[in-house]
Amino acid sequence: MDPAILEELVIPNQTKIILVVLDGLGGLPVRAKGGSELQVAYLPNLDQLAANSACGLLDPVGPGITPGSGPSHLALFGYDPFRDNIGRGVLSALGIDFPLHPQDVAARANFITLDERGIIADRRPGRISDEVNRRLCRKLRENILLSPDVEWFFETEKEHRGVLILRGQGLSYAVTDTDPQRTGVSPLKPRALDPAAERTLRLVNDFLAQAQEILANEEMANMLLLRGFSQYRRFRFLEERFGLRSLALASYPMYRGLARLLGMDGVPLIPNNAQKFRLLRENYPAYDFFFLHIKETDNRGEDGDFEGKVRVLEEVDRLIPQAVALEPDVLVVTGDHSTPSLMRSHSWHPVPVLLYSHWGWIDEVERFDELSCLRGSLGRQPALNLMGLMLAHARRLAKYGA
Amino acid sequence: MDPAILEELVIPNQTKIILVVLDGLGGLPVRAKGGSELQVAYLPNLDQLAANSACGLLDPVGPGITPGSGPSHLALFGYDPFRDNIGRGVLSALGIDFPLHPQDVAARANFITLDERGIIADRRPGRISDEVNRRLCRKLRENILLSPDVEWFFETEKEHRGVLILRGQGLSYAVTDTDPQRTGVSPLKPRALDPAAERTLRLVNDFLAQAQEILANEEMANMLLLRGFSQYRRFRFLEERFGLRSLALASYPMYRGLARLLGMDGVPLIPNNAQKFRLLRENYPAYDFFFLHIKETDNRGEDGDFEGKVRVLEEVDRLIPQAVALEPDVLVVTGDHSTPSLMRSHSWHPVPVLLYSHWGWIDEVERFDELSCLRGSLGRQPALNLMGLMLAHARRLAKYGA
Repeated sequence: MDPAILEELVIPNQTKIILVVLDGLGGLPVRAKGGSELQVAYLPNLDQLAANSACGLLDPVGPGITPGSGPSHLALFGYDPFRDNIGRGVLSALGIDFPLHPQDVAARANFITLDERGIIADRRPGRISDEVNRRLCRKLRENILLSPDVEWFFETEKEHRGVLILRGQGLSYAVTDTDPQRTGVSPLKPRALDPAAERTLRLVNDFLAQAQEILANEEMANMLLLRGFSQYRRFRFLEERFGLRSLALASYPMYRGLARLLGMDGVPLIPNNAQKFRLLRENYPAYDFFFLHIKETDNRGEDGDFEGKVRVLEEVDRLIPQAVALEPDVLVVTGDHSTPSLMRSHSWHPVPVLLYSHWGWIDEVERFDELSCLRGSLGRQPALNLMGLMLAHARRLAKYGA
Repeated sequence: MDPAILEELVIPNQTKIILVVLDGLGGLPVRAKGGSELQVAYLPNLDQLAANSACGLLDPVGPGITPGSGPSHLALFGYDPFRDNIGRGVLSALGIDFPLHPQDVAARANFITLDERGIIADRRPGRISDEVNRRLCRKLRENILLSPDVEWFFETEKEHRGVLILRGQGLSYAVTDTDPQRTGVSPLKPRALDPAAERTLRLVNDFLAQAQEILANEEMANMLLLRGFSQYRRFRFLEERFGLRSLALASYPMYRGLARLLGMDGVPLIPNNAQKFRLLRENYPAYDFFFLHIKETDNRGEDGDFEGKVRVLEEVDRLIPQAVALEPDVLVVTGDHSTPSLMRSHSWHPVPVLLYSHWGWIDEVERFDELSCLRGSLGRQPALNLMGLMLAHARRLAKYGA
């Protein structure tokens, strides 16, 4: 069902919805560990919540599709992950609160180390601090000269990450990545995916050639890669679509960017997860919808760190009673996709979800893990259905039809 | 899948399909009662049927969407509940066998009691009999004068309910309800939703102003509300689409109207549910498809009467062996949506379904209730899939493709 139908049915209400997203929540069983990360973790609070909730599994964006965090979060918020997909560049720019204009083209930049043969030796030079990053950005800004009919910006995101923004008439995002996503090879040559992108391609090539000269004498970060070319357009906000004044409690820039794209308010610089729950409590009266994002589950999964992921799950389990204590009308705990530490990467597997509400169909699920949730009353559904379910359980949708 | 695909595959057969719809079948567990209405009811026959059937859950029209009975029934019959949705006015007019013409605009009318300040004191003045209703309709017909280029009709439905029909060139259904759906407020002023509806709006306003004068000295029913403005168009019939000569056994006008819209024959004035099963037997040789509608499950749910709903379920359980005894090729028992007595209203929750057929995948479900059906071999699917499943199990669909 197209979530646009929900928009016609939205009615005002005073109810509160809390959505806790553990990034990369789902895992896979590892025989030597005795199960998946969720199955092995000690999660008394999440298990108790599951026992009093409607549980199920969400398919992030489609069967067999391993999503990036952009489309998988869009789906959770009721935006079509294919039609509304937006590139990493725009999300990174919004995440650092860069004031994008419609039609601006943005790309995510990574400072890298090239060896003397021009081969990528390190894609994430670890010792680049935010200060070094800022110095490199300044150096690029002060020395690169592009065509005078284009404005451009190069901004620090964090550590080795930055953002390139191009502003001008007739720019296009249809330019391919220079990032091969691995070491031991040369950066890719960007290509224009359609003739209208030829001019943007020339600008990008010009930028990269000058950057290579300017960074040549740097020790760690002697080059940069670009990926996720994308063009900013204004999204219809959650408040406009679903009547939800929304607050995002996320520390990673990309998620703050995504939240900003959808019109959520944000809180900058949240040092840790405990602080997110404190901010949830402090801001509780002022909003209808709260998106609380936990990143470390995904990080530990990508590191292949089974125990580390278990520890993050157990940390969240200790915090979750603070959300329950607020007595929200709807509390959902789920993930945007799976990141099994067995795979060290995002995956396509469905993600457990629990929906705690006075109007939920409480099922027989008593443990919050992948196989237990399979028996839940929410069944298995696309993540795109979640917004409708949250609004319904919060009594924020009128009846459809006579 | 668009059910239009089924139409290309339909093949003739002599098989029989019985669809028993318990309106508002699904419920929610109530702790003090020990479960949901279905879980608590004593249903030996339905349970035995479930044990020998393929079971599952149907999502009425979409995730989180609470449907009215119109769209939810359309889905059960294989009509898209969004694209083919039709307003209450047309359904009410068809339900009283009013011979609508294409383009006629109809609205459902409720006689109400206004207090001396013009506030709605009673939206369903209970003591209005069908006779009083008929007298009031006559009084309106004899005294209201509208523009001579429009024909209009005002007909009794039942108790406090009636139907207004407008016939003429260039009429529009894009007029909003005057019924605020609650007491303690004034009737709403109707609005035109597009410029083409301005003329219809003037007619409606003229009608309402005259009706208020004419009804002013009535004790109970001194005004009326209008809602569900809709315009009649001919639907493609079940026989044309799926080759099913169909009989509807429903006592409530709206359901008879819906059935008539889809080309089903009907039987007027069926006094009780036992009679429906008797009529099923008597008419069995003459039709392919039988729609047997039980309304009281929904009524008791809307009243918040848990035990009352349980009693209706148990009544149907005692009658169901009569349908089984006919040895239909396909017998389906399901609901059009949930009406949990806990909520006193329709809801979005999925509805149990059992499909009894020689060709069904008999699963391990042994009880006909919401959680048991979750484990059924039909899984959880949109109600719109049901027509294809019924036709398939009745061997009325050819193979698709080479």
